[in-house]
Amino acid sequence: MNNVNLASFFIPSDLHKDITEKHENQLRAPPPGLRLPERLHVYRELYPLDDGTGPALGLAGLTTYAYRATSERDGSRFCLRRVEGFRLTSQEPLSAIDRWKRLKHPNIVPIAEAFSTRAFNDSSLILSYAYYPNSHTLANLHSPNPLNPSPPPLSEKQMWTYLLQIVSALMYVHNQGLAVRCLHPSRILVSSKNRIRLNCLGALDILAYDDFANVNLQQQEDLVSVGTLLLSLALGNSKAVTSNPTKAIEYFSRQYGPDLQRIVLWLLGNRSPLKTAEELWSMITKINPGIVAEVIDSSLTANDRLDNELSKEVENGRLVRLLCKFNFINERAEFDFDPRWSETGDRYIIKLFRDYVFHQVDENGKPVLDMSHVLVCLNKLDAGVDESIMLISRDEQSCLVVSYKEVKQCVESAFR
Amino acid sequence: MNNVNLASFFIPSDLHKDITEKHENQLRAPPPGLRLPERLHVYRELYPLDDGTGPALGLAGLTTYAYRATSERDGSRFCLRRVEGFRLTSQEPLSAIDRWKRLKHPNIVPIAEAFSTRAFNDSSLILSYAYYPNSHTLANLHSPNPLNPSPPPLSEKQMWTYLLQIVSALMYVHNQGLAVRCLHPSRILVSSKNRIRLNCLGALDILAYDDFANVNLQQQEDLVSVGTLLLSLALGNSKAVTSNPTKAIEYFSRQYGPDLQRIVLWLLGNRSPLKTAEELWSMITKINPGIVAEVIDSSLTANDRLDNELSKEVENGRLVRLLCKFNFINERAEFDFDPRWSETGDRYIIKLFRDYVFHQVDENGKPVLDMSHVLVCLNKLDAGVDESIMLISRDEQSCLVVSYKEVKQCVESAFR
Repeated sequence: MNNVNLASFFIPSDLHKDITEKHENQLRAPPPGLRLPERLHVYRELYPLDDGTGPALGLAGLTTYAYRATSERDGSRFCLRRVEGFRLTSQEPLSAIDRWKRLKHPNIVPIAEAFSTRAFNDSSLILSYAYYPNSHTLANLHSPNPLNPSPPPLSEKQMWTYLLQIVSALMYVHNQGLAVRCLHPSRILVSSKNRIRLNCLGALDILAYDDFANVNLQQQEDLVSVGTLLLSLALGNSKAVTSNPTKAIEYFSRQYGPDLQRIVLWLLGNRSPLKTAEELWSMITKINPGIVAEVIDSSLTANDRLDNELSKEVENGRLVRLLCKFNFINERAEFDFDPRWSETGDRYIIKLFRDYVFHQVDENGKPVLDMSHVLVCLNKLDAGVDESIMLISRDEQSCLVVSYKEVKQCVESAFR
Repeated sequence: MNNVNLASFFIPSDLHKDITEKHENQLRAPPPGLRLPERLHVYRELYPLDDGTGPALGLAGLTTYAYRATSERDGSRFCLRRVEGFRLTSQEPLSAIDRWKRLKHPNIVPIAEAFSTRAFNDSSLILSYAYYPNSHTLANLHSPNPLNPSPPPLSEKQMWTYLLQIVSALMYVHNQGLAVRCLHPSRILVSSKNRIRLNCLGALDILAYDDFANVNLQQQEDLVSVGTLLLSLALGNSKAVTSNPTKAIEYFSRQYGPDLQRIVLWLLGNRSPLKTAEELWSMITKINPGIVAEVIDSSLTANDRLDNELSKEVENGRLVRLLCKFNFINERAEFDFDPRWSETGDRYIIKLFRDYVFHQVDENGKPVLDMSHVLVCLNKLDAGVDESIMLISRDEQSCLVVSYKEVKQCVESAFR
């Protein structure tokens, strides 16, 4: 992996633009006339997320719809997945979700809760998942569809990176004694650049509830599904894989190297003895230790980039508060005759300091607009450093030598 | 790894406090009387980083000192490593640094440049590295010293995590045809929580410059050094390892499992056939695929946490610029008699808007300090929305109805 890739593998090149788009996306109001419920359990402001480019995909043979919604509990956003026409016969299936609610892993979409509702004028099941703005399903990205008619084929490296993340999630889920049961390109999100998240977890434990379900068997099926998934991603088409698996494997072998082939054949091959996700993981790290190093390096590099951006913005946050304090204090009309504004008072110092920071002039008396001077001064003020500066009165008749520390004390005492 | 560990493995629990401490640390002025040079090449504001708790560690038998410094080029900070009493006999050794300058990896400290100087009244070599505030060396953290007299022993998991990162960096450096040559607890930084960075890279390529150096041999020595390093970390003492390696290995075997032992023995064992860092990496991922999964999961989880924090903070930068514009414009003494400040001019509107945003009073005429009012107003101004507000003159005799969009135009025209 060259440096450019390493730096931007998990982070978009224009991070701020990406975040702003996500913000704006979340503020968008739904098109009028949809007749969605105004309120659903604790959720409001429903906004449809299905792009309508294909038939809505089913779960256990039932049609599902996705909505973004805002929780009244804390104002945060969720993705509500509605399963149309599903009638709960008992509350027991819902309790299956309690185990899923405890799961936390960077490659799964966590579930918040499940409930049934009549708000859509039918009997619907609602599953509330974490919401990832601007995310796409693997199907959206890698299968031809009206919005993306000829997606480029998945590179070997991307295939490995997806596989690594899917297996990591699978290993975690299986270790919790659960099974994913819906490993399909339309049920896996890419929530940010190259980041995989298994979606719709737990849904089938309600929709196809079975008291006597054999989790071991379901886990074996998960592993077979990983094999089918890799073929589907290679072909950009799930149906072609199920209708002619042999041809799909042939196609796969022409596009990808022998290591990936070996993994697919192992996944789709003889089911005894039982396979485990951990075995699969060991196989991957053994066959391709290089991709493991690349994923770790890219991810740590992404951490550095985010950390760096965050520390800049946190500094800005403190500057915003500081600048607001100045503006709260200075030139308040109602204090025009307040004695604390006398030529020796704290607030006078703040005013002169404001002039020092913002109202510099050059030798011809023209304003100097120097943001770096402003930021240096404000940062020193915020830190309360010992360094002294000379403040000059507006009539240039008097001057005061004060330290940033003293100015900081003045600002603080003005807010007491 | 349980969820709590996963979430905070690479990120401190109080992220904002950590960032603020790093920020303040960078602004701290040096104690007076040190007689450090005011200016060194393009660097200013030198601040000593050695904590003085032990003898300054040498490189190639020479004493070194570390200083934080600010570059005049862009105001960013660097760690200058000064090698005392080193005299360059030709410029050729300095060119060795050109290759190191191109290196970028999340587990190394990048080098910016190297130069010689007489600013310390001797002949010193200066190596300028990236600066990581609040970082510690592995020696600081895991060997007894006055500031940390009895450090807790390194857990098996932490040992693996360190090893994984060190080997990842080693593999990268070796692939570039270079060798680290100073893998020692005092030459490896922990730059943020559990994050390893190899430090002082390239220094020995100048200090112990050799036209005919055998890089392959140096790389073999790097691998032996990894083995010694693991023993040193386990014992909290590098000297005990070199004085009695057999006893050190015995101690190690009692503290850590057979997998880590196997790796140490391989590293310290027979040198033929030649070993490679890639072999070591494959060995680690094969022996302990679980730790690989944990490191990937922790790192991706850290990305999520940072991304989430960043999306909350990303607006701050825009608000700072906006607030500074206000302060650049308002109450400039030199414009007291400028006609554009008349009661109908653009700048008058800006002044009244400032009063509207910051100088709200309650029914008793007491100041209202409402940050949320301020932020809402500023964000609307920044977006230039059509919403209108009523601005009232200070004498309450006149009022103006303007939209945020119009105020925005006033601010922009003031800067033309």
